[in-house]
Amino acid sequence: MKDFTFHTPTEVLFGRRSEERIASLVRKYGGTKVLLHYGGSSAERSGLLPLIRTALAEAGIGCVELGGVVPNPRLTKVREGIDRCRAEKVDFLLAVGGGSVIDSAKAIAYGVPYAGDVWDFFDGKAKATAALPIGAVVTIPTAGSEMSNGCVITNEQGWQKRGYSSGLSRCRFAVMNPERTYTLPPYQTACGAVDILMHTMERYFSPETDMTLTDALAEALMRTVLDATPVVLAEPTDYRHRAQIMWAGSLAHNDLTGCGNVGDWATHHLEHELSALFDVAHGAGLAAVWGSWARYVRTSNPQRFVRFAVNVMGVTNDFADADRTALAGIEAMERFYRSIGMPVSIPELIGRPATAEEIDEMACKCSRGGTSTEGSFRVLAADDLRAIYRAANGE
Amino acid sequence: MKDFTFHTPTEVLFGRRSEERIASLVRKYGGTKVLLHYGGSSAERSGLLPLIRTALAEAGIGCVELGGVVPNPRLTKVREGIDRCRAEKVDFLLAVGGGSVIDSAKAIAYGVPYAGDVWDFFDGKAKATAALPIGAVVTIPTAGSEMSNGCVITNEQGWQKRGYSSGLSRCRFAVMNPERTYTLPPYQTACGAVDILMHTMERYFSPETDMTLTDALAEALMRTVLDATPVVLAEPTDYRHRAQIMWAGSLAHNDLTGCGNVGDWATHHLEHELSALFDVAHGAGLAAVWGSWARYVRTSNPQRFVRFAVNVMGVTNDFADADRTALAGIEAMERFYRSIGMPVSIPELIGRPATAEEIDEMACKCSRGGTSTEGSFRVLAADDLRAIYRAANGE
Repeated sequence: MKDFTFHTPTEVLFGRRSEERIASLVRKYGGTKVLLHYGGSSAERSGLLPLIRTALAEAGIGCVELGGVVPNPRLTKVREGIDRCRAEKVDFLLAVGGGSVIDSAKAIAYGVPYAGDVWDFFDGKAKATAALPIGAVVTIPTAGSEMSNGCVITNEQGWQKRGYSSGLSRCRFAVMNPERTYTLPPYQTACGAVDILMHTMERYFSPETDMTLTDALAEALMRTVLDATPVVLAEPTDYRHRAQIMWAGSLAHNDLTGCGNVGDWATHHLEHELSALFDVAHGAGLAAVWGSWARYVRTSNPQRFVRFAVNVMGVTNDFADADRTALAGIEAMERFYRSIGMPVSIPELIGRPATAEEIDEMACKCSRGGTSTEGSFRVLAADDLRAIYRAANGE
Repeated sequence: MKDFTFHTPTEVLFGRRSEERIASLVRKYGGTKVLLHYGGSSAERSGLLPLIRTALAEAGIGCVELGGVVPNPRLTKVREGIDRCRAEKVDFLLAVGGGSVIDSAKAIAYGVPYAGDVWDFFDGKAKATAALPIGAVVTIPTAGSEMSNGCVITNEQGWQKRGYSSGLSRCRFAVMNPERTYTLPPYQTACGAVDILMHTMERYFSPETDMTLTDALAEALMRTVLDATPVVLAEPTDYRHRAQIMWAGSLAHNDLTGCGNVGDWATHHLEHELSALFDVAHGAGLAAVWGSWARYVRTSNPQRFVRFAVNVMGVTNDFADADRTALAGIEAMERFYRSIGMPVSIPELIGRPATAEEIDEMACKCSRGGTSTEGSFRVLAADDLRAIYRAANGE
């Protein structure tokens, strides 16, 4: 096992009454003027934004607003946010939404105190040394950004989707009321479940395999999501199971499930090129490519996939044929994805097969022009990435 | 499920090389002059204290020392520490040891900025509003104090053992190298395992029973400790399993296993009177009384004990007889305790039965003279507590 650092300073307030404390939390963490950052109109319609505006005003906290964050959040919006924060002397970012909004807020937080262009961080040209403090009010339990140190931004020039991670951007607080997720459309609920599972699986399929407790926690988390997702798709206002998914979303990406392991992350990066090229939902893109990745890499450590099949997917262990058990586990996860309306191939994801040129473009960008590799469970070069895209394309 | 707050700001450095960063962590969290606080001579002999002294000196950090903390740490030593810190203008507490040393450091941290007597916090007469910052170098994985908000101190006047909890005392950092636990005597290793299990069980046996994810994580943690403990008793230098126990110790008491639940804590408080009266090891005291508590309260929610029996202890579920399954789970845990050399009754704990007077005294102190109750899974009055002590006494 690997030495590790675990540092999750985010103060989480979870439950029905958590929203009552938003203004006092902003105040506690030093905010005197916030940028209220959000996506579309749902937070307006639900009454959440009006509630927050009133609470901030009553607490004497200044507030400027920037809505319109879209899924796969854009660099242009980040730059707009940086300009607004500077012009208005904002000292605290309040993100209301899911991973896209929180990620956008994180990028703004890095950009405000930085003299250069914020894309430098995502392009590997600079390291952040400061960031504005951020608080999150989570309405979409998916990305786990509220407790993670990462964010992913899409640069419209060249449609590059890139991540940047630093402890500086960990949210000071996260307010999570499962009731706010009742109105999520089924497709988004399902995408969220996939993303939560994948954040766990990216850490679980590790070349390190002796961190028993971490693996056991990851398995418990995955089983909980597998169990709760069909319930909330059938009954969107089931508080108990909405709560399981929401809390699982945070724990899946705050590094709890990675302590002592080495993450793989190839599936995430394969997906980043899919959503950069086709602007598909991240969760759906992950579901479309994961099975092809798994079949491609499974022989690197068959027992790891056997363990997944048995402990997570409830597959009967065929002790005489590890690969049969491993494949049964992968197929069981694909059946689960299908059962919640998720695609398990590129044609199912985008409505047609990708062209050879599109696959080449994605494999090229994912390997940064063939100069870098992906993954750790198996290290994948450009040709491997192309083979996985092709398999996911039904070739 | 209950609304909850989850806030674990402690920066954990875990692994073989974690100790190299002690001085830089003290510096990072503002320490310029530390009280180096520890127990006996084992940290001296192992080379850990010399290593820390050198690192602090090289970093230009001042250092005064206070060793001699004993198990069930004493108020007298806490007061001595407060005086030393004030006299020497210490601004950071560095605790090297296990729960006793860290708890002692927490009490000192509360006491230094407080004008009154530090026992006021433990006696319910005052609430802490400030505390010196603390860092922990963990050598005994038991109490989870390195990530918890609690501490327990024994007042020699009247041998009262009392706890106090506040987020102010959460350690700024915790350095954990499993190799430092290789030399722990078997008895202490076993006591640690009991305490880790009990920190999880005190939260698991909750009147709230719909926080599925929390329960699943707790079960994963308990199974890991049950699996790892016999391994390290047989092979004390098994890094992998020492690591599981060490990390489990932190996660068992940082509230991860309590999110959405209501803790019970009756077994802990029953034990506090045992160790206050007989000065026994906390883990051994817990093992001696838990089974009697469990049998006494199990009918309050039989299915909770069935779940424990099946999911944690691996008992076959007798669907026709829930109580039979529940009892089999309790007995399986007692067999485990015995197998690692732990007592499962008061006579096994202290070498003789307790007298009727001693039992009356403990029941009286535990219920604060009959004025308060213990527990939440079942609420226990003085008579209930006396009945549990008697059952544990073999009556």
